Amino acid sequence: MNRARPEQPPAANLENDPVAVTIYHLTVRWGECDPAGIVFYPNFFSYFDQASWNVFAQVGITRPVMIERFGIVGIPLVDAQASFKWPCRFGDRLEIESHVSEWSTKSFTLQHRIRNGDREAVEGYEVRIWGSKHPEDPNRLKALPVPKEVVTAVNEGTILRE
Amino acid sequence: MNRARPEQPPAANLENDPVAVTIYHLTVRWGECDPAGIVFYPNFFSYFDQASWNVFAQVGITRPVMIERFGIVGIPLVDAQASFKWPCRFGDRLEIESHVSEWSTKSFTLQHRIRNGDREAVEGYEVRIWGSKHPEDPNRLKALPVPKEVVTAVNEGTILRE
Amino acid sequence: MNRARPEQPPAANLENDPVAVTIYHLTVRWGECDPAGIVFYPNFFSYFDQASWNVFAQVGITRPVMIERFGIVGIPLVDAQASFKWPCRFGDRLEIESHVSEWSTKSFTLQHRIRNGDREAVEGYEVRIWGSKHPEDPNRLKALPVPKEVVTAVNEGTILRE
Amino acid sequence: MNRARPEQPPAANLENDPVAVTIYHLTVRWGECDPAGIVFYPNFFSYFDQASWNVFAQVGITRPVMIERFGIVGIPLVDAQASFKWPCRFGDRLEIESHVSEWSTKSFTLQHRIRNGDREAVEGYEVRIWGSKHPEDPNRLKALPVPKEVVTAVNEGTILRE
Repeated sequence: MNRARPEQPPAANLENDPVAVTIYHLTVRWGECDPAGIVFYPNFFSYFDQASWNVFAQVGITRPVMIERFGIVGIPLVDAQASFKWPCRFGDRLEIESHVSEWSTKSFTLQHRIRNGDREAVEGYEVRIWGSKHPEDPNRLKALPVPKEVVTAVNEGTILRE
Repeated sequence: MNRARPEQPPAANLENDPVAVTIYHLTVRWGECDPAGIVFYPNFFSYFDQASWNVFAQVGITRPVMIERFGIVGIPLVDAQASFKWPCRFGDRLEIESHVSEWSTKSFTLQHRIRNGDREAVEGYEVRIWGSKHPEDPNRLKALPVPKEVVTAVNEGTILRE
Repeated sequence: MNRARPEQPPAANLENDPVAVTIYHLTVRWGECDPAGIVFYPNFFSYFDQASWNVFAQVGITRPVMIERFGIVGIPLVDAQASFKWPCRFGDRLEIESHVSEWSTKSFTLQHRIRNGDREAVEGYEVRIWGSKHPEDPNRLKALPVPKEVVTAVNEGTILRE
Repeated sequence: MNRARPEQPPAANLENDPVAVTIYHLTVRWGECDPAGIVFYPNFFSYFDQASWNVFAQVGITRPVMIERFGIVGIPLVDAQASFKWPCRFGDRLEIESHVSEWSTKSFTLQHRIRNGDREAVEGYEVRIWGSKHPEDPNRLKALPVPKEVVTAVNEGTILRE
């Protein structure tokens, strides 16, 4: 896969340019379910969050690497959405399929699909930034461009080069 | 306000027909914040959830009333979205402004706006159903039409009539 | 191991009568940590809870089995305690070692030990009941004697007999 | 009340030396309850945690004050325990009564009592330290002696002097 387009910022993935999909598994916990017996819906976003950290960690971009090598604080959210299609209950084993569907200069978008057995349970996205402390206001975060080697590692599903 | 349109199902609110806005206050808890020092984003959906229950409870439609009078299990989600605009931290006092922006035959939409001091911190929506147990499959929920007196009470911000 | 003492209620385990130890693994999640960067302490009790359900599930006593075969609602808590010895952080892989240290007629005690690498991070216990709905007050739960086959399965770490 | 005993470290409170009791109110949230319809027990420790921060905040010792004036990171736990006596459910309004029952040189103990209506629902304690970063190991925290003016403010329930 030839991704070397040095003069350009990370761009939206082309349709015919497949990106790596990361799979994350989890089992629904008792305390994540509500009195209706189903997962309390904000916890699905918590699942998305775990899956997103995992997308990066799987290619060697753990939070310590983010801090020490890239000088960012984290990958905070600017937008998130989910559609809930099938209920999930205590003990259900879920599979989350995640990939970055777009890298723009200021943010990137993760698509998540949660399967519960052979049903699609939840589908949604997160828009996140590559976030450093704002130089003028410690209470805010500032979006930096995502480094090209990060984009490449995540898109290709290959370990970040030293 | 004359809302008596007996032959019609609950319809989308007309623009010139203002609906009641409910205010909900909360203070950000220590355990709701992450190592970046800001609210862990799924907790904003938990705030939305609290605000939504409050919209109904404020007009006398508590969960026991939902169960005993209306025979539903709850008001589960089919869709939710949020945009995160300003970080919130431990101890921040937040104000959530919520209203139902649309009643359709199968679902209804709540709009939420979270203010942190004089900043708008988060904005989003939830689409929920008026959910009873599915008659043929106890693992599923079924959307019932929202009773007219519920729509009226919530839209007008007046206590549900006995 | 001969545990057939039919005339007696389940008793405290004798010292020379080893009970099965169950191991449960988990990785600390981002949203489980607080602004000090360490696991928000109530989440360690959530870990205990997961480990306890796992003690039963590992021998075939899932919650559906509890409900359908034994007629209980769950295994609610009457007491819990933990000592925190070493901090745990985002991404740490934890191992929880759990066993039932005592079965009394009204309750049972689970001991938990959480290891973080080669450190003991947390140690504690939970006292739980085998809880059915109270016959006279639906708002309360009533402790039933734990069925002998449950005690045997958990103590021996062998699948519950049909 | 004469608390001036300058040559001594903060000591256990004498029986005839009443300490201030702080009251904290909260309403049980939907997402804090489990499929049995009652508060998921780790959330009671989350309630304790909120009540403890409130004990300090009520006398002017917020977390920014802890960090900026006293140079600590927080008040992490070394031990916690709770007894669960009466179930709490969605919408229940709880009252938590908290006080520091002991100041020792290395830690302090908070006693909490949660009332649900006219029932005592939960009773327990937390042992915490006045925690700074460990000078030799950034992964650990170190207990510092609690400053005398903090002990006085909390015991007397009076605002911390500048």
